[in-house]
Amino acid sequence: MATRIPTRPAGARRTGQDRDDSHKLTAVGGLAALSLDALSSVAYGPEAVVIALTAAGAAAVRLTLPISIAIALLLIVLVVSYRQVIAVHPDGGGAYAVAKTSLGQRTSLLAAASLVVDYVLTVAVSLAAGAASLASVFPSLADHLLAVALVGLLVLTLLNLVGIAESARALMLPTAVFVVAILATIVVGLVRHDPVAVVGHDLGPIEPTEALGIVLVLKAFAAGCSALTGVEAIANGVPAFRAPAVKRAQRTELALGVLLGVMLVGLAVAIKIHHIVPRGDVTVLAQLSAGAFGTGWPFYVTNLAVTLVLAFAANTSFGGLPVLMSLLARDNRLPHLFGLRAERPVFRYGVSALALLSAVLLLVVGADTNQLLPLFAIGVFIGFTISQVGLVRHWRQTRSAGWRGRAALNATGAVLTALAAVVFMASKFTEGAWALLVIIPVLIAGFDRVENYYADVGRQLGLGELPPRPASPGRQPAVVVVPVLDVSRRTALALSTAQRLGSSVHAVAVGIDPSATKSLCGQWRTWDPGIELTVLPSPHRTLVAPIVGYVQTLIGDGHDVTVLLSEVEPRHRRHELLHNQRGMVLAAALRSRTDAVVATVPFRLE
Amino acid sequence: MATRIPTRPAGARRTGQDRDDSHKLTAVGGLAALSLDALSSVAYGPEAVVIALTAAGAAAVRLTLPISIAIALLLIVLVVSYRQVIAVHPDGGGAYAVAKTSLGQRTSLLAAASLVVDYVLTVAVSLAAGAASLASVFPSLADHLLAVALVGLLVLTLLNLVGIAESARALMLPTAVFVVAILATIVVGLVRHDPVAVVGHDLGPIEPTEALGIVLVLKAFAAGCSALTGVEAIANGVPAFRAPAVKRAQRTELALGVLLGVMLVGLAVAIKIHHIVPRGDVTVLAQLSAGAFGTGWPFYVTNLAVTLVLAFAANTSFGGLPVLMSLLARDNRLPHLFGLRAERPVFRYGVSALALLSAVLLLVVGADTNQLLPLFAIGVFIGFTISQVGLVRHWRQTRSAGWRGRAALNATGAVLTALAAVVFMASKFTEGAWALLVIIPVLIAGFDRVENYYADVGRQLGLGELPPRPASPGRQPAVVVVPVLDVSRRTALALSTAQRLGSSVHAVAVGIDPSATKSLCGQWRTWDPGIELTVLPSPHRTLVAPIVGYVQTLIGDGHDVTVLLSEVEPRHRRHELLHNQRGMVLAAALRSRTDAVVATVPFRLE
Repeated sequence: MATRIPTRPAGARRTGQDRDDSHKLTAVGGLAALSLDALSSVAYGPEAVVIALTAAGAAAVRLTLPISIAIALLLIVLVVSYRQVIAVHPDGGGAYAVAKTSLGQRTSLLAAASLVVDYVLTVAVSLAAGAASLASVFPSLADHLLAVALVGLLVLTLLNLVGIAESARALMLPTAVFVVAILATIVVGLVRHDPVAVVGHDLGPIEPTEALGIVLVLKAFAAGCSALTGVEAIANGVPAFRAPAVKRAQRTELALGVLLGVMLVGLAVAIKIHHIVPRGDVTVLAQLSAGAFGTGWPFYVTNLAVTLVLAFAANTSFGGLPVLMSLLARDNRLPHLFGLRAERPVFRYGVSALALLSAVLLLVVGADTNQLLPLFAIGVFIGFTISQVGLVRHWRQTRSAGWRGRAALNATGAVLTALAAVVFMASKFTEGAWALLVIIPVLIAGFDRVENYYADVGRQLGLGELPPRPASPGRQPAVVVVPVLDVSRRTALALSTAQRLGSSVHAVAVGIDPSATKSLCGQWRTWDPGIELTVLPSPHRTLVAPIVGYVQTLIGDGHDVTVLLSEVEPRHRRHELLHNQRGMVLAAALRSRTDAVVATVPFRLE
Repeated sequence: MATRIPTRPAGARRTGQDRDDSHKLTAVGGLAALSLDALSSVAYGPEAVVIALTAAGAAAVRLTLPISIAIALLLIVLVVSYRQVIAVHPDGGGAYAVAKTSLGQRTSLLAAASLVVDYVLTVAVSLAAGAASLASVFPSLADHLLAVALVGLLVLTLLNLVGIAESARALMLPTAVFVVAILATIVVGLVRHDPVAVVGHDLGPIEPTEALGIVLVLKAFAAGCSALTGVEAIANGVPAFRAPAVKRAQRTELALGVLLGVMLVGLAVAIKIHHIVPRGDVTVLAQLSAGAFGTGWPFYVTNLAVTLVLAFAANTSFGGLPVLMSLLARDNRLPHLFGLRAERPVFRYGVSALALLSAVLLLVVGADTNQLLPLFAIGVFIGFTISQVGLVRHWRQTRSAGWRGRAALNATGAVLTALAAVVFMASKFTEGAWALLVIIPVLIAGFDRVENYYADVGRQLGLGELPPRPASPGRQPAVVVVPVLDVSRRTALALSTAQRLGSSVHAVAVGIDPSATKSLCGQWRTWDPGIELTVLPSPHRTLVAPIVGYVQTLIGDGHDVTVLLSEVEPRHRRHELLHNQRGMVLAAALRSRTDAVVATVPFRLE
């Protein structure tokens, strides 16, 4: 038999497909939708370096610049390597896709688990950090950080339920303001040299508690690497871009790298020139912007943009997690449901689930960034390391022109990111990083169980082998059973539909209430639709059991049985609770207890 | 056309119907399952009288006995009248059924709303009171009342998910112990005359704050009437009894009345003889049992039985509310879903919903009985009044032998219960009773809206008029569309089923992933099932839109279309999340956007 592949969609009417393209991302939109996580991390990365270094006294802060330059070099390695990831894995999935192709089963599951953890943590961390940043501008909010973070989550969730492109559009303006404000802070700060205003409380002379050695420098480097979280999100979300998706995604990754690198090094220079040290109640970034602009409106604009962008950085997850989950579902490692990412109801479940998990996380830790940040960074750097190692393996296998140079670059990146992950894990183990040693193995075991289950189902379905040719119908006539509740247009529709589905139609009513049954029988006789009505007794007033029993008897007699239910389709979704539950309960019972075909015909209300 | 009514169930195989009788109640089981609310109220009714009277000083407590006798007389009126309600309304529903028959639409909705409120409040009040009573035996629990109440709710919910008869069985022993312990407390207390032990802190001399006048006596009477809550539950739940249900329910009501009356008057006599006044930390009942038995094991057994029975009194609601809701659903005042009370999944939703509402209520008021008791009693007494007024109307209409005497009895009862309701409402208005003036009208408006909606749907369905005779099939051949995901036994089953449902079978696959599509087409050619496979292009990688478009085109061409999906039926319910979501999403889209029949055939896993 030939296989027919139409060149045009068989459906002549448009079914909303054309709209889908507008839901996808341009390069600029991608920067807003998928890179806010990375861009916004300049608000806490340099600060983390400064705080780590002050353990060796205020003078040690001068090391911020060389450390930031090292981080920027690592950023270059990461950006180059993720542009390669995008080209090699245009279906997205980032570290997961790389590991699956080049590093095998186990490693890919580790990558997937750490990515899932990070997406959820991104939402919580970013919203918590955004709330904290807002409170440093409006001190009266300091007591309501959790509420602020939850309100932000609600806004984000609503934006994403509308669709990712719309949300990207909503995020473009704050992103632009943020980038301009940070660059202005750097430039104006460097030009003015002496701070215009100093904000926050002086914490007094900073006493060194640790010697300035290699361990401390490593700690500061690892802490600063939290500024690099998020550079993988674009590679994970390639299919969210408009065609040509690979080109657009690579361009977005490059733009992100340039912006982030310039901001990181620029802020480090400004920190050095202005002799910034930690001060109570305000962030390093707030000190820098006050130093550049004073405490007038540019100070407020800058810090509000930081807040907004920090909060909206959470959006990265809403873009990336559904893509990752659909890849896992296609590999039989998550319920197949998640493979239907493009369908609106499924997409909405995903958005709601992510929002719920993040809300729980925020409630548990009380919107405290410090508890979440180490877990977050460790997961990200596991992903970085896996990606780089995978690419090294990829280059060695393909041996295309110039592979040695690329492999050396990725190997360097792998060593650096692995180092950062290990330093993070060791220094934050008792502060929550231990939880990753529980969560990640549990996730991996879950992926494993799902995969084994689907493999077993696949054997039973006979996947990979040719099934017997479709069986011919049984010798007994095919029967269509129509449960009847009333004499109405809906029943008339069901009966006429039943007549074309089978050779024999059985209308059955269940005698729950004697007087109602008597009246139904009377109406039926008057109507006389040409089909006999059988009343099934129901001594215990249940609707389901008599019909299931009747169908089982027919099947036992060798009939092919279809049960046809008419479903009322209300015009408004809110009325759905008022309809069809009898049908649903009946259909569920028939499916679990009989082999009958269960069919529904819609009766549409106006 | 003749209507065939088989004398035996048409289903030859047993379908679990026979089991249903064991789920119903005997008279003794009914006392445990539906009367704990009433019986347990002796633990707070007399106490409420004593506390109300001490406003006029310690000496006023002597009035407890005459007030209790008046309450017992009201109890006799209520028991007689509810035995009549049971006979006149064997379908249950209590005040709602009476009002619907004799008092019209508006009054029946008021009755229904107050009954719904009371069922939910019963659960919360009883569990809170039980927790408080337990804490008066084990003072260390006093700080964890809410947790104790929630644990009790969890246990009850689990018992009820198993089934009402099982839960009645579990409740019989504590009920028996409770009745014996209260009667023993009374008898031993009267014999010993002088208290064996005194528990609780002396609160010092009780200063009168109010004159001992008619208002105070009325307040004390109303407060004591809280001992009568629950006597209506049996009449509401008649269908839960085994046949002959009316006889059994009447016998249960009588037994309840006798037990409750004896306990109330007996406790009042003991209170008088032992000169009981409120003492800190312990209940009146705890004082009486310590006075009778000392503080050894009989004291603990008595108070633990009180606690257990108070907590399990909540069970009354799990028995009664589903019956009431099914009656409302049959009258089109609640979604029809609730009419399927006898079906296990529906019953389970009801139990879970009631548990959830009660848990929320407990969390909101922090397990504080005093906040809930007035709302509770007002609702109950509105129901009492409606029942009595309805019966007066009923006797006047039927004018059967001796109707004047019955009507006079019910009229007296109506005046007394209305009085109690008004006194409650006036004295507790600012303490929470105002909430009823919000909740009850909202519920009534809700019932109204549902009823109007169903009336509109009924018009569209043509209920009450004869619909046109079933239409004959269209002129174009009937088409069965089978969406294909893979070449497997499941697909083979779907194709063979499709061949008997329509004259023409269209197998369609959606081309989401080019390589997967190519491989599917190759397998299809090798398999060669005798049916052509059409591949629908999907530029936006969605599964649903191409199939919906294809079906719309076929329908536009005048075909009758059935879409047949094969559903995997897993052996364990926990695996359901892993299956059929693609089918569900597709079926939902087809139902809302096309007029196709949607059919499913089960593929059963081992």
